[in-house]
Amino acid sequence: MSAPKRAVCLLSGGLDSSTCLAVARRDGFGCYALTIDYGQRHRIELEAASRVARALGAARHLIMKVDLRCFGGSALTSDAGVPKGRSAAEIAQGIPVTYVPARNTVLLACALAWAETLEAESIFIGVNALDYSGYPDCRPEYVRAFEQMAHLATKAGIEGRLHVKIHTPLISLSKAEIVRLAHSLGLDFRMTWTCYDPGPAGRPCGQCDACLLRQKGFREAGLPDPLEDVP
Amino acid sequence: MSAPKRAVCLLSGGLDSSTCLAVARRDGFGCYALTIDYGQRHRIELEAASRVARALGAARHLIMKVDLRCFGGSALTSDAGVPKGRSAAEIAQGIPVTYVPARNTVLLACALAWAETLEAESIFIGVNALDYSGYPDCRPEYVRAFEQMAHLATKAGIEGRLHVKIHTPLISLSKAEIVRLAHSLGLDFRMTWTCYDPGPAGRPCGQCDACLLRQKGFREAGLPDPLEDVP
Repeated sequence: MSAPKRAVCLLSGGLDSSTCLAVARRDGFGCYALTIDYGQRHRIELEAASRVARALGAARHLIMKVDLRCFGGSALTSDAGVPKGRSAAEIAQGIPVTYVPARNTVLLACALAWAETLEAESIFIGVNALDYSGYPDCRPEYVRAFEQMAHLATKAGIEGRLHVKIHTPLISLSKAEIVRLAHSLGLDFRMTWTCYDPGPAGRPCGQCDACLLRQKGFREAGLPDPLEDVP
Repeated sequence: MSAPKRAVCLLSGGLDSSTCLAVARRDGFGCYALTIDYGQRHRIELEAASRVARALGAARHLIMKVDLRCFGGSALTSDAGVPKGRSAAEIAQGIPVTYVPARNTVLLACALAWAETLEAESIFIGVNALDYSGYPDCRPEYVRAFEQMAHLATKAGIEGRLHVKIHTPLISLSKAEIVRLAHSLGLDFRMTWTCYDPGPAGRPCGQCDACLLRQKGFREAGLPDPLEDVP
């Protein structure tokens, strides 16, 4: 029996990346879950990532420090406020202040470094082009360009042993479709974390863009979000 | 008078990246020097980077932590030994154990994040395709692929305000040519640091690939290396 295919799976602990990891497991990959501690204000998501990695049977889970806070430039990596109470149309329009400059490029570069070390041919990332239409680094053309660059970037690539593929199983799904997919794969939603601006008691704020998109996704999928029922 | 052009300049504190910063300064860029503390065994180079950034008049200097040591996979980020006493032909052949998986992709991704925050259109990196012919991420085709990806990766790129160019002024120079260029720009070589395996007294080992390439460069340039004269 051959060794299972290996994949580095970027895992924030949110709904999308947790679903993405569940897809990689369903598809038979041995999963090396990678969480980047980039100085995000919602550090509570790091704990969610650990829970999810364990529950989904990741072969390993690494939390890697990459200090994006040193640049600022985003409401997620500075003390600027996070927008609250926006409509779905407002969220979809333009690029919000929670956009972190070049974040996905940094995440994918780190995943590529681990993939090369492991000789893993696959990287999974839970980007989604629909709900966040304004994020440049969630678009298919961006992902393909990263893949082409990655093919030229590694020793294993040069030697013809490795052609890294970036898997984006959620890229064309709506949030409701992601919720349904996760549900069908048995993901325990209580383990995930989505909110950008958790309160002192560690509860979702219910008003930031990330909370509102999550609520909309559950509502449209016709499923309850267990995080909303926590007293 | 318009504001000076801004550039993010990757600066390790070694001969190549210091020369690269000197070129960017000569060409009139306001330079934002970025040093990545990735867990390299030769951490002494971080101090060199600070000296060089100050001496060359960088507008700012950031030392950013990115923990590549968590992956291992290189003699520079683990406790594996560094090769000693190899000939130039041996160094040029294949990819050495000091290769750090996907390092330049991680460095450039971080530079891109800062460039986007600053709205800087230029990134300088002192890669060199000749002496390190075995490094995949020192080749022009790799750099062009990164640039194409970067064009799709940023908010400023999408909005048509930013088209990041990756400058590689040393890519086709020999080490001797780099030494001559640095000398012509007045770089004080005493500030730089090259050795992969500094001894306890903070002296270059004189035997690792990096030391040997530096020695060869100075010899062929017909210039003395002041670091070799330190008692």
